[in-house]
Amino acid sequence: MNTSEFRRRGKEMVDYVANYMEGIEGRQVYPDVEPGYLRPLIPATAPQEPDTFEDIINDVEKIIMPGAASPACTELETVMMDWLGKMLELPKAFLAEKAGEGGGVIQGSASEATLVALLAARTKVIHRLQAASPELTQAAIMEKLVAYSSDQAHSSVERAGLIGGVKLKAIPSDGNFAMRASALQEALERDKAAGLIPFFVVATLGTTTCCSFDSLLEVGPICNKEDMWLHVDAAYAGSAFICPEFRHLLNGVEFADSFNFNPHKWLLVNFDCSAMWVKKRTDLTGAFRLDPTYLKHSHQDSGLITDYRHWQIPLGRRFRSLKMWFVFRMYGVKGLQAYIRKHVQLSHEFESLVRQDPRFEICVEVILGLVCFRLKGSNKVNEALLQRINSAKKIHLVPCHLRDKFVLRFAICSRTVESAHVQRAWEHIKELAADVLRAERE
Amino acid sequence: MNTSEFRRRGKEMVDYVANYMEGIEGRQVYPDVEPGYLRPLIPATAPQEPDTFEDIINDVEKIIMPGAASPACTELETVMMDWLGKMLELPKAFLAEKAGEGGGVIQGSASEATLVALLAARTKVIHRLQAASPELTQAAIMEKLVAYSSDQAHSSVERAGLIGGVKLKAIPSDGNFAMRASALQEALERDKAAGLIPFFVVATLGTTTCCSFDSLLEVGPICNKEDMWLHVDAAYAGSAFICPEFRHLLNGVEFADSFNFNPHKWLLVNFDCSAMWVKKRTDLTGAFRLDPTYLKHSHQDSGLITDYRHWQIPLGRRFRSLKMWFVFRMYGVKGLQAYIRKHVQLSHEFESLVRQDPRFEICVEVILGLVCFRLKGSNKVNEALLQRINSAKKIHLVPCHLRDKFVLRFAICSRTVESAHVQRAWEHIKELAADVLRAERE
Repeated sequence: MNTSEFRRRGKEMVDYVANYMEGIEGRQVYPDVEPGYLRPLIPATAPQEPDTFEDIINDVEKIIMPGAASPACTELETVMMDWLGKMLELPKAFLAEKAGEGGGVIQGSASEATLVALLAARTKVIHRLQAASPELTQAAIMEKLVAYSSDQAHSSVERAGLIGGVKLKAIPSDGNFAMRASALQEALERDKAAGLIPFFVVATLGTTTCCSFDSLLEVGPICNKEDMWLHVDAAYAGSAFICPEFRHLLNGVEFADSFNFNPHKWLLVNFDCSAMWVKKRTDLTGAFRLDPTYLKHSHQDSGLITDYRHWQIPLGRRFRSLKMWFVFRMYGVKGLQAYIRKHVQLSHEFESLVRQDPRFEICVEVILGLVCFRLKGSNKVNEALLQRINSAKKIHLVPCHLRDKFVLRFAICSRTVESAHVQRAWEHIKELAADVLRAERE
Repeated sequence: MNTSEFRRRGKEMVDYVANYMEGIEGRQVYPDVEPGYLRPLIPATAPQEPDTFEDIINDVEKIIMPGAASPACTELETVMMDWLGKMLELPKAFLAEKAGEGGGVIQGSASEATLVALLAARTKVIHRLQAASPELTQAAIMEKLVAYSSDQAHSSVERAGLIGGVKLKAIPSDGNFAMRASALQEALERDKAAGLIPFFVVATLGTTTCCSFDSLLEVGPICNKEDMWLHVDAAYAGSAFICPEFRHLLNGVEFADSFNFNPHKWLLVNFDCSAMWVKKRTDLTGAFRLDPTYLKHSHQDSGLITDYRHWQIPLGRRFRSLKMWFVFRMYGVKGLQAYIRKHVQLSHEFESLVRQDPRFEICVEVILGLVCFRLKGSNKVNEALLQRINSAKKIHLVPCHLRDKFVLRFAICSRTVESAHVQRAWEHIKELAADVLRAERE
């Protein structure tokens, strides 16, 4: 949608809201629909080609408004998470569909998804161990629980461990910054020998630092064998898996208990929208379920409906699936794939510019939209370069440390980015690099 | 703002966004402002009288846009939380102002605020006990930790206990459904004698079930004496404290460590916006703080700025304080007070209608916008009445249990509610009650 269409559609939406407010007294306070009403009204998969805005708005009136906020808010979310799961070719076990045991939920952030997975895993292992040895207290078990992630995992994983009150150990990553079987297995054996109870592993697909990928195909079978919950965090990279040529990066997700990525990061859905799937929804609801009278409703034991409040930390919820519905339909799967491909192509364009300049080096294989690069030489010279780049305020780079190296990260992430921007950014970086190198020589 | 002004202003805002998108390449990627730039540009308190929409939009351009999302998003939040704290006459210790140790943060829901408070309290007590006895493990302490709330507290308190991995005990409330000193003291003595470690109390002002108020003036001093964190949850009722005549309900908050209420419930700010204050911000940041390289920034150790990511469960944040800024200025404090007063007056109007009908009884003193009432008689007849009311779909009531009684809850909560609606609702309820009573006699 270009800005001139945005102006027209935006103003139509303002009128839509105003008309709703003016006519609100004529509406029922509670919808007539029955649980499960929505799914049959919506296709089973996202459209390949874009729908028109008129079609979408007509569907809002026809499909959403009769279901008001409840149950439409919940039911659209379940169906949109199925759409998105199918776009990623997630194993069927993660889908809700009509009678699945799994399903998806929108969380606010990947941090929350990791925490929710860890809490569900914690409850599950405590129940399992107490079933076998009823004399074990929760505290006695928790003291021995240990979770794992790669040393490249996002800080929110460590935070989830802190909040959950369990040990979290960092597994040393390999030369490609990936968690591999051998390092995980080694930690497991050591910890089991010390009387600890390994229960939870976070594998990252597309780390924040350098977009490296833990080896799911190696880590997954270990988790299954050792009865550890495997949570896969693909916060950034997950969007790319809608393209068949990147889907192999998700291979091994079939071993996972939960999977998460952020459509608000790279799939054109506005913040916040973090998509999380589980294979067994009862694992989540088992961790959180409480039912006071004022939250009871006539359908809750019917098995027909989803109570998302048992799937998350907060109680209240916003109607975030509308954003997914609009975006998926306005772009179509093909439009979204084209968007991802363009970004990846632009990052390779930047990569090749860097590689042509002998003063610079590429630090990690470029797989998606992130290029980790640096001036060959000291950390100090790279820190000086970063400082010049960010002070000039024409582009903005966020650095990272890879082992002992200070590294610059060039991320393709704007909706409207073009080759000309990449070229201009590189010219700008080269000029500032020349200044830095000249200053160093003087 | 009436709908015709909404149409005009809404369309202006659509153009504002479109113009921004069209001109975005002309803007810097990073703002020029320094930390702390925003506070001097904004008055120290909310306006008493409404500002015009033009004034507010001009300020967005002048004050917010130069600070972009960062640091404007954080700084406006800190100042708005100070504004709101002053509207409530919170003790100065809860304000951030220029150099305070306390301050406010927007959470998504009261559930999150309770959890964050519990986690901070847990970390604090663990650190305190480990400082005195370094041989104590975290697990050994957690096993003995016990938190308390009234038996009328919201289910999210129990949930926070579950997530935090600590015991939560319900204190029997008194005849007015309030937690009192004696019952709390009794539980404390019993638990301490059993070797447990009381560390956290949630006092509720305005319970979900019946809008009862725990006795802060009794509970507060006990918490301080026993070194227990006191969290005050006023999710619904908090908004009323901006009116001097209701402020006494908050007396005793000076004993609390943290306080929370939801402006999205009753202060005209759209969902979600849950306002939480703490006396010592370091208590929160101590529980959550982690600083990886990609989240470091040049000002973080300056003491000048607030890193809200250390105050909450998720990492990412939305710019929710803009909603507060617009609402506080468009209504003015007087407009918001008038809104609260009108709702309370309407609930008393409904109360007096109920009291005039000898078939009905009022179940709890009506203090704010909630009326708990029922037909004199069996729970069965009240369940039948509720069923008829909600099936008719003209109004919608959510019931509760008070002790062994099934109770109907009439809540005044719409922005546009008038006396005529209350009168019509009562006529409707009376008709359905007559039907129920007739059916019972037959």
